[in-house]
Amino acid sequence: MAKVAIVMGSNSDLPVVKGAIDQLKEFGVEFEAHVISAHRTPYEAEEFAKNAKANGVQVIIAAAGKAAHLGGVIAAYTTLPVIALPIKSSLMDGLDSLLSMVQMPSGIPVATVAVNGADNAGILAVQMLALSDPVLAEKLEAFKVNMAAAVRKKDAQLQEDLKKL
Amino acid sequence: MAKVAIVMGSNSDLPVVKGAIDQLKEFGVEFEAHVISAHRTPYEAEEFAKNAKANGVQVIIAAAGKAAHLGGVIAAYTTLPVIALPIKSSLMDGLDSLLSMVQMPSGIPVATVAVNGADNAGILAVQMLALSDPVLAEKLEAFKVNMAAAVRKKDAQLQEDLKKL
Amino acid sequence: MAKVAIVMGSNSDLPVVKGAIDQLKEFGVEFEAHVISAHRTPYEAEEFAKNAKANGVQVIIAAAGKAAHLGGVIAAYTTLPVIALPIKSSLMDGLDSLLSMVQMPSGIPVATVAVNGADNAGILAVQMLALSDPVLAEKLEAFKVNMAAAVRKKDAQLQEDLKKL
Amino acid sequence: MAKVAIVMGSNSDLPVVKGAIDQLKEFGVEFEAHVISAHRTPYEAEEFAKNAKANGVQVIIAAAGKAAHLGGVIAAYTTLPVIALPIKSSLMDGLDSLLSMVQMPSGIPVATVAVNGADNAGILAVQMLALSDPVLAEKLEAFKVNMAAAVRKKDAQLQEDLKKL
Amino acid sequence: MAKVAIVMGSNSDLPVVKGAIDQLKEFGVEFEAHVISAHRTPYEAEEFAKNAKANGVQVIIAAAGKAAHLGGVIAAYTTLPVIALPIKSSLMDGLDSLLSMVQMPSGIPVATVAVNGADNAGILAVQMLALSDPVLAEKLEAFKVNMAAAVRKKDAQLQEDLKKL
Amino acid sequence: MAKVAIVMGSNSDLPVVKGAIDQLKEFGVEFEAHVISAHRTPYEAEEFAKNAKANGVQVIIAAAGKAAHLGGVIAAYTTLPVIALPIKSSLMDGLDSLLSMVQMPSGIPVATVAVNGADNAGILAVQMLALSDPVLAEKLEAFKVNMAAAVRKKDAQLQEDLKKL
Amino acid sequence: MAKVAIVMGSNSDLPVVKGAIDQLKEFGVEFEAHVISAHRTPYEAEEFAKNAKANGVQVIIAAAGKAAHLGGVIAAYTTLPVIALPIKSSLMDGLDSLLSMVQMPSGIPVATVAVNGADNAGILAVQMLALSDPVLAEKLEAFKVNMAAAVRKKDAQLQEDLKKL
Amino acid sequence: MAKVAIVMGSNSDLPVVKGAIDQLKEFGVEFEAHVISAHRTPYEAEEFAKNAKANGVQVIIAAAGKAAHLGGVIAAYTTLPVIALPIKSSLMDGLDSLLSMVQMPSGIPVATVAVNGADNAGILAVQMLALSDPVLAEKLEAFKVNMAAAVRKKDAQLQEDLKKL
Repeated sequence: MAKVAIVMGSNSDLPVVKGAIDQLKEFGVEFEAHVISAHRTPYEAEEFAKNAKANGVQVIIAAAGKAAHLGGVIAAYTTLPVIALPIKSSLMDGLDSLLSMVQMPSGIPVATVAVNGADNAGILAVQMLALSDPVLAEKLEAFKVNMAAAVRKKDAQLQEDLKKL
Repeated sequence: MAKVAIVMGSNSDLPVVKGAIDQLKEFGVEFEAHVISAHRTPYEAEEFAKNAKANGVQVIIAAAGKAAHLGGVIAAYTTLPVIALPIKSSLMDGLDSLLSMVQMPSGIPVATVAVNGADNAGILAVQMLALSDPVLAEKLEAFKVNMAAAVRKKDAQLQEDLKKL
Repeated sequence: MAKVAIVMGSNSDLPVVKGAIDQLKEFGVEFEAHVISAHRTPYEAEEFAKNAKANGVQVIIAAAGKAAHLGGVIAAYTTLPVIALPIKSSLMDGLDSLLSMVQMPSGIPVATVAVNGADNAGILAVQMLALSDPVLAEKLEAFKVNMAAAVRKKDAQLQEDLKKL
Repeated sequence: MAKVAIVMGSNSDLPVVKGAIDQLKEFGVEFEAHVISAHRTPYEAEEFAKNAKANGVQVIIAAAGKAAHLGGVIAAYTTLPVIALPIKSSLMDGLDSLLSMVQMPSGIPVATVAVNGADNAGILAVQMLALSDPVLAEKLEAFKVNMAAAVRKKDAQLQEDLKKL
Repeated sequence: MAKVAIVMGSNSDLPVVKGAIDQLKEFGVEFEAHVISAHRTPYEAEEFAKNAKANGVQVIIAAAGKAAHLGGVIAAYTTLPVIALPIKSSLMDGLDSLLSMVQMPSGIPVATVAVNGADNAGILAVQMLALSDPVLAEKLEAFKVNMAAAVRKKDAQLQEDLKKL
Repeated sequence: MAKVAIVMGSNSDLPVVKGAIDQLKEFGVEFEAHVISAHRTPYEAEEFAKNAKANGVQVIIAAAGKAAHLGGVIAAYTTLPVIALPIKSSLMDGLDSLLSMVQMPSGIPVATVAVNGADNAGILAVQMLALSDPVLAEKLEAFKVNMAAAVRKKDAQLQEDLKKL
Repeated sequence: MAKVAIVMGSNSDLPVVKGAIDQLKEFGVEFEAHVISAHRTPYEAEEFAKNAKANGVQVIIAAAGKAAHLGGVIAAYTTLPVIALPIKSSLMDGLDSLLSMVQMPSGIPVATVAVNGADNAGILAVQMLALSDPVLAEKLEAFKVNMAAAVRKKDAQLQEDLKKL
Repeated sequence: MAKVAIVMGSNSDLPVVKGAIDQLKEFGVEFEAHVISAHRTPYEAEEFAKNAKANGVQVIIAAAGKAAHLGGVIAAYTTLPVIALPIKSSLMDGLDSLLSMVQMPSGIPVATVAVNGADNAGILAVQMLALSDPVLAEKLEAFKVNMAAAVRKKDAQLQEDLKKL
């Protein structure tokens, strides 16, 4: 098993979840991904979660929409850090997913990122792994430098755009 | 085991949940109640839910607050009807509990009542049982008649109150 | 009359409500459907609701949007269980429908499902009927098994999709 | 029967509704008040509403909380103007009451005032009656003048308060 | 001047406001309409509102979006009943318009209808006028009968649609 | 007249508004304050606003709750900058006041601060005046330094508090 | 450096921010614009903000979406007035941006305008500068007159439109 | 420096933040805590954050209310994982704090826990550290076992409570 495991309620979530996968690839972190439903395949959810650590998983990303219980259900069976990624559903603009994930009761945390914030779910997983992986830690520093450079490039572009206004 | 089983995340929910218990007692419906946490005792939740039907339970009431996953987690393991009772937590005025419960994905319904609507959770359970229990069905008719009478009594009281204004 | 009666505020709600009809058909449950407006045809609503039980109806599904009073108005005239299906209206993203339905006062419950959660309205009706119908109860078990299989199939598909990323 | 009829879901609403009564008394408009529940006494609601006009009622004020259907149910049976007064319930800070009342479907308006805005429910009723009652219309003009004077008095008081700061 | 005056913040609101105009035409009620901005043409707003009654206006409909102050500003200068029609703006899904209109302070009511509920704004104006106009009152009764008939027709259509499912 | 004028809907707002007054005093900025209601004293609002500039006022702070139109109404009659201070009303937790103030239409800005954020209303007024007043500008720099020192003092206190835990 | 500096989180915000630029050009106010990210280029944010005053900037407009910290971060490093322009992000309809900006703690105000209210951000900046620039102040008066004229023109257009209905 | 650093906007947040401290003590994790304000002491925030890693900090917990920028500002200067703890402020019931924290833009994640969910902020920090600390990992397993036992004890208590009803 890989270091990061991504679970999602349906493969229809892949276009959003891909943002996390892209980041993990970018940082060279091994990952695996599964469709697991907290409600339709509760036994698979349990099996996955309680064996994850023994299988070498270190961080779990759980993506779900609407009454998004997946993060909490996974966290119930493991002591690994669980990152919750609320998916914007067609209704309520994602507020239902966000509140269902973030408002976890005392004792069972999930680390929630923004609605549809898949990039950040991936990067947060990398940050956790980097605590004991100096190579990843250095890559994160470089990533930060590159982000700043990209913003400066956008600023240069803006100066061009302004001239055309 | 009793016909209705009530599960709640903590015994601190009892003052609210008591509203459901009172109704079940009023209608003479046998019940049992358990503290089960979707996140802290997931194995108990699973055991309870997958054996409920074999143990004679017909309707389950699940009461929970904040990221209220209990109803959904129970419903994942049983085909019995599950009534979800969102508890008003100290934050978000219960909107988090309500959305976490009611917005269940296709295939796994829970029957949600009002935030802190414990009376109605009990009465709804009775309505479901009454489908195959003519005595309960008659009691429900009488209950409805009594409610109307109570409103008329309040109206009589109002006429007195108005005179004193 | 059929075992499940569906009422909706307008035939324009049919594309959403069809989700409930499909489930009832799938489970082989007889149903009927009516356009009844709580506000425009209150007498029909009353007639329908107070005669439903005598006509053999066991469960009622009420679908409505905006200030969605239909579920509550039907429940006022019957002791049968009423399932409320909030329809996403063009405004407020369905929050108005949801709150208008779920926040019923003590004594008159409606069993509310997700905004536009028509599938679940149908399945919940089946669960209620299955309490006294062993054949339906078995079908529900099979349905649950099939749902899990469908998720596993999606997971297999995901593994293929991941290779193409 | 009186010119304005006030209906409320419970006599526990009287402390809020009293604001409307006080205004009607102030303007010398005859009124009556009733406890009627849209859900517990639907027959009384119907009887009241469909006979209101014949009984001399000209404007109806309906006060209710939570899933506040009372205004809509009354409006279903009459063509008289119905003023809806959303009561702040213990949950959701009155947003449930407000949306349940104001979001009425096309064809059946209710004239909604602020959450707990009982004064304004009374004054709005007076404004409607004043359309054909010149004495009331004059009283409304005087009321406006007095309100402005009261604000100016508060301003004078503020000048005193400021000195003490 | 006509019996009903409609004011709107911009002529871009006309496609929504037309719903009110259509109802007024249907009922044969004379109306006039103006673009008046509470913020951009405050003097026109004042002139319009304080002279409305003398000019024969009996009911005013004020349509506005976003920070929708128009209804309140008009009501500040007149004792005529003001119907507030919140327009769905491009942001906040109309919640901003609704709250800005309905939450008026004590003493200055506006009669608020649903977000984009232009039909109902028109019908509510007719209901107010009908208090002293028996011909309009009869038309409202007929309108109610016709609405019920239209629902029954939709029900007949539904029965046809169901056969095709 | 003073440089900053504060208007509030009622002298009952003074306990909140006092936060702004305290800041203005602290910075030695002359101010005046008035109770003016957008809806109950619209003529006073107009008079105040259109003469403010001629009377020497440079910045206006408008404090109001619920359907908080005061800021917008003042801004309609003046080109001076208007700072809007939404007051937390007893309902809706101030969201109604905030949206009524901040969502102003194009052309008539108001500068909105936090709900009950009276301190900041005062400081923002000082910042505007400081654009052409070097003494005030220096005081603002000192104020910033002092705030940082106060935080450092709180940090020192925290270190003490932690020892006692 | 120019009198008004606009900072935005990304050049993708330019289509919205252009509304502010257009107003500044209309009023003949010199401006400059930069892409600065509170989170990706914090050093640039700091440099920009703490040097702004020395560089001749008088007013800063900060435009950002989602967790819109840019206004607050800039305000932390300067005593110049900062206008916050919440950008409607793809989620939450801009409510996240609005609350992140407007709810600033005591001591560090930002002057928040409507979600996507770029025009008003520009005009508000002009109003601040006009406090010590009589030419700008006169232009603002003319602008107000022109806005009123534009509304009257729309009213004339409405009268034409009404004839065609 | 300690392994976990807690920063909070004010020492008045300590009663809430204490929940995190208690967990860290329970697990024997060294920590330090500081009052740092994103807006009032931006230089301290920067210094703290950019040196945290070199000083031996591995995980940062940032607690803040209202426009809660602290988590984002810290995350801007470090690649360490930042846990955001939204504090329930006196307004908006913590929704402002939650959205200000969780909706971070791509590239700069913060791991958000529930409003006032201080316990979970502490436990989540432990989970991250446990990835490379087998002793902590074992303690987490024991903690989970104890939580389940506590729930079972509450269930036993419930059975006693039920007898007394």
